[in-house]
Amino acid sequence: MRMYDIIQNKRDGGVMSDEEIQFFVDGVTSGEIPDYQISALLMAIYFRGMNEHETSALTLAMAKSGDMIDLSGINGVTVDKHSTGGVGDKTTLIIAPIVSSLGGKLAKMSGRGLGHTGGTVDKLESFEGFNTELPPKQFIDQVNDIGICVVGQSGNLAPCDKKLYALRDVTATVNSIPLIASSIMSKKIAAGSGTIVLDVKTGSGAFMKTLEDSKLLAQKMVDIGYSVGRKTAALITNMDIPLGNAIGNSLEVIEAIETLKGHGPKDLTEVCVALASNMTMLVTGKPVEECEKMVLGAIADGSALTKLRQMVAAQGGNAEMVDNTDLFKKAGTIENVYAPRDGYIKHMDCEKIGISSVILGAGREKKGEPIDFSAGIILKAKTGDFVKKGDVLAEFHTNLPNKLSDAEDLFMSAIEFSDDKVEEPVLVYDIISKPSK
Amino acid sequence: MRMYDIIQNKRDGGVMSDEEIQFFVDGVTSGEIPDYQISALLMAIYFRGMNEHETSALTLAMAKSGDMIDLSGINGVTVDKHSTGGVGDKTTLIIAPIVSSLGGKLAKMSGRGLGHTGGTVDKLESFEGFNTELPPKQFIDQVNDIGICVVGQSGNLAPCDKKLYALRDVTATVNSIPLIASSIMSKKIAAGSGTIVLDVKTGSGAFMKTLEDSKLLAQKMVDIGYSVGRKTAALITNMDIPLGNAIGNSLEVIEAIETLKGHGPKDLTEVCVALASNMTMLVTGKPVEECEKMVLGAIADGSALTKLRQMVAAQGGNAEMVDNTDLFKKAGTIENVYAPRDGYIKHMDCEKIGISSVILGAGREKKGEPIDFSAGIILKAKTGDFVKKGDVLAEFHTNLPNKLSDAEDLFMSAIEFSDDKVEEPVLVYDIISKPSK
Repeated sequence: MRMYDIIQNKRDGGVMSDEEIQFFVDGVTSGEIPDYQISALLMAIYFRGMNEHETSALTLAMAKSGDMIDLSGINGVTVDKHSTGGVGDKTTLIIAPIVSSLGGKLAKMSGRGLGHTGGTVDKLESFEGFNTELPPKQFIDQVNDIGICVVGQSGNLAPCDKKLYALRDVTATVNSIPLIASSIMSKKIAAGSGTIVLDVKTGSGAFMKTLEDSKLLAQKMVDIGYSVGRKTAALITNMDIPLGNAIGNSLEVIEAIETLKGHGPKDLTEVCVALASNMTMLVTGKPVEECEKMVLGAIADGSALTKLRQMVAAQGGNAEMVDNTDLFKKAGTIENVYAPRDGYIKHMDCEKIGISSVILGAGREKKGEPIDFSAGIILKAKTGDFVKKGDVLAEFHTNLPNKLSDAEDLFMSAIEFSDDKVEEPVLVYDIISKPSK
Repeated sequence: MRMYDIIQNKRDGGVMSDEEIQFFVDGVTSGEIPDYQISALLMAIYFRGMNEHETSALTLAMAKSGDMIDLSGINGVTVDKHSTGGVGDKTTLIIAPIVSSLGGKLAKMSGRGLGHTGGTVDKLESFEGFNTELPPKQFIDQVNDIGICVVGQSGNLAPCDKKLYALRDVTATVNSIPLIASSIMSKKIAAGSGTIVLDVKTGSGAFMKTLEDSKLLAQKMVDIGYSVGRKTAALITNMDIPLGNAIGNSLEVIEAIETLKGHGPKDLTEVCVALASNMTMLVTGKPVEECEKMVLGAIADGSALTKLRQMVAAQGGNAEMVDNTDLFKKAGTIENVYAPRDGYIKHMDCEKIGISSVILGAGREKKGEPIDFSAGIILKAKTGDFVKKGDVLAEFHTNLPNKLSDAEDLFMSAIEFSDDKVEEPVLVYDIISKPSK
């Protein structure tokens, strides 16, 4: 088998055989196929696409290119959630305790923040003492014990995808539905959970900029999930609005706690209830309407908050902080940012707002850099709101006061005002919970 | 400027600006742009094409990426000829003396053979003492003196093309009209001649497999030539028939001499007359019909043969061999290959026949390997001919008698017989001698 022939065949619109896909994945993983042939094939796939069978075969081969996490020691139905990225996305902190309190088993590996997007692992480490590096046995034991454990990603998950993604990122071949779908699903499949709920973001900053493409991507991933025996559902949600008001690690944790207490921002609560209901549906097999009532009940009766408290304690964190959020360290400087004019907020560029929070110290530019848990932004007005000149738009929290004006300049450039009334943005556009056939 | 943006723009069907093309060519030549980004762009160009201006700009930038041969010291109109490859293609040996005898200035750089195709430089070295490595001044002086000089390619011509071609060859991006056209024309432009005639092969083994595509390629190259001030014409000729009967270095030289004496094979003579007439047309500006008469006259009156004799003598070769071809060294073993059945020859796979001659010692697999000038094949029957079982199909000349059976097996697999009468193949399909606008 020659890589040249595989490229030529795909270039001419042909279908890759299972053997060719395996040859490709093996060669990428081992480094035997040179980058220039890989990127030529990726561009040919960009133009020609992959059929359903090819996409599933690529996904499974990539999943098996490295460690496959074994969750068979867990009693019950494991459930995982993935988001295609987002600023201020603290949904995992909220939905994991909810779903766990309703019987789902959350053996979850999460990432750290990089660039303008945060990571669940960093957020959890805002709890004093919280340990995100547990040995495998302790990870499994904790899930069997209390139903929930969130750790940093360890092991070598889908190394083929890692290599391909790095190449796609520099060769303008990211935005291909089969390549995005196989990339996401290969990691989720390797991560071991039996059921998966996907949060597919749509909008100007997302992989998929149109609702139509987002639906295609979501359906493709759901199909892949079912094709390899993982019940999968996907929600298509709005990328163009920051979820909730808090951006920054401990600020987001505090907001998540408030949401679990039933006092969260309306938009964040709505998205979390939708995600948690669908996860519960996959876990229990009950109709989603019934699951939604269960989710709302778990918030109302405090059982979801209890689950968060249990997890923090089990992973060595200070569980008192769940009940008294004043215990989270505060930033040295808190400064207001004011509206420069009267008007409706028409659009907020989430990426720019995310970068503003990084400037304030809430994120990192490169892997391994430390972050300031207390830094970040609390939005006081969001898309659709009317503000008067001089109203507070946001609160900036930082220990780097000399960076305030840079962060404010970027933040202001992210906000577009309008004299005309702005429609309230849709949060969840669609839910895909069945395979296409 | 970022290579990423250039790839993305071309991927989405955009046009590369002159600055982007220069950035790309500079980065390829210097090695600053990584291969994986180059090959991604090449594949995007494969799918999206390039417009006329982009193709010309790419060609010129590639031509200028290395040495530009300066032929300004030559008095008169310089003329060059390029063929897109072919087995048994000894046309340069014939048309260069003809056109030179009619006033064209042939300051020609030629290549060596590699794989199944031969090279003019190797063929010329069949003349005892012939020197193909002349210093630049001697090269120019000889052209001013006798109107013709053929040397091996020296200097660093179009290094960007060399790098791109090597990548295209392993990433299935060779067969793109703008990439083929710019590759060929960049080298011809760097080689310095003021007028250029192209022999564009069409058929199963050629870059372009259909006549329609071959015409597009030919027109594109003619347009490029005119856009950079080089009068250019292109002949579209049949790739699926070996030109003449001889394959192998001294065997082809002897056939070329016979052709210059007016006794050459009909097909070879026809193609050479067409090429030489068009070269003469570009050089003199006279109508092609008149040029054809001049070409036939130069053969009939011996002036073309005289020019070959002058060139061989000027470059240190034994010019007596022109008049007495028995002086060429003969192979130790000459063996006939017989027809296995009655029938018409329907098709000959030129690539396989070329490789058969390499097996006999006439070529080289890798650069720098020695070759046996005397080895090769004389075809005794060609496409369209009827043969009876036991008729001689070909004469094999070799000094490696133990390779005869391998060469014969391959040769026989190259020939397709038919019970039905086969049409005589067309040799010259079309001539494109004007820019498209």
